[in-house]
Amino acid sequence: MQMKLLQKRIVKDGQIEAGNILKVDSFLNHQIDVSLLEEIGKEFHRQFAGQTVNKILTIEASGIAIACIAARYFQVPVVFAKKTRSLNIAGDVYTAKVESFTHKNTNDIIVSKKFLSPGDRILIVDDFLANGKAILGLAKLVEQAGATLVGAGVVIEKGFQDGGKRIREAGIDLHSLAIVEEMDTEHGIRFREETL
Amino acid sequence: MQMKLLQKRIVKDGQIEAGNILKVDSFLNHQIDVSLLEEIGKEFHRQFAGQTVNKILTIEASGIAIACIAARYFQVPVVFAKKTRSLNIAGDVYTAKVESFTHKNTNDIIVSKKFLSPGDRILIVDDFLANGKAILGLAKLVEQAGATLVGAGVVIEKGFQDGGKRIREAGIDLHSLAIVEEMDTEHGIRFREETL
Repeated sequence: MQMKLLQKRIVKDGQIEAGNILKVDSFLNHQIDVSLLEEIGKEFHRQFAGQTVNKILTIEASGIAIACIAARYFQVPVVFAKKTRSLNIAGDVYTAKVESFTHKNTNDIIVSKKFLSPGDRILIVDDFLANGKAILGLAKLVEQAGATLVGAGVVIEKGFQDGGKRIREAGIDLHSLAIVEEMDTEHGIRFREETL
Repeated sequence: MQMKLLQKRIVKDGQIEAGNILKVDSFLNHQIDVSLLEEIGKEFHRQFAGQTVNKILTIEASGIAIACIAARYFQVPVVFAKKTRSLNIAGDVYTAKVESFTHKNTNDIIVSKKFLSPGDRILIVDDFLANGKAILGLAKLVEQAGATLVGAGVVIEKGFQDGGKRIREAGIDLHSLAIVEEMDTEHGIRFREETL
């Protein structure tokens, strides 16, 4: 279920830029409004209530802020995957390839094997969902570890790209707190309508 | 003033590795113990009590976790500087060069001019202080913006490297929550003794 407070903030402070870029760097991923993140963290906790989660997994850099504040409500540790372009990765890590929509490049993402185990029940969180590659990459790390993926929580889903569809079709329980269905500089932002 | 709880955790879970590396990736900068970060955030708030801080500045990636949790106690937003190796930076950013001790490379760090202003009173926080380049780089961004640097809070200072000395000599009010004076695999870790 989407979050009205967040939708309003996106409309108020988000900037639509060429190339389907939605810039929310004044409150989410460069400057960070921590009080908004607290509401986001609470909302993820509410939406995944009744599920056992013992670790939150995210990806550097801006995912870390969301994961750490959300982790307070779940009372669990955070693990963040690191991005690297180096190929000489030691053997003691789980790894996947992730193409970035924003940066138009491919990174290896890695997590040390010490921090993901078969007994773990993982919630993935991230700031943006566009083509879904980051979350699918993180899900691969969870699978490599033999851990259980409880679901994925995303702050902003770009509903006009296919990432959300891919992730839902992969059977992942995806909760997006705002789903942008359409946006352009002339008409602004339209969020996906939901039947409750 | 140093923090006993943190010192104990470093002794318990930190790993000393070749090349003066102190690995704390099980609780601080890969897997993150958010409940420890809460104690760290509270302690920074106590140590900078009485000072007006309206923004916390840090650098991606692991600084973000510490900054966001600390920001809850200060009730201020966070801004994180981004690392980039690209030279084609747009003109609307403050920028400085930072050599990384851990990664043996040099990055440009950038902050959008929108998020640092002359009226700002900035607290810098980071996870590690070794050669001091990251904090001095962040201080340069604060200076470029004409903002006031209130001080710097660091989780772990490597007291046997010269970063702490440089930063204190630059007149920055530096608070390190643990200062490792000596470490080796044989004798373990000795923290700096403080006269209270």
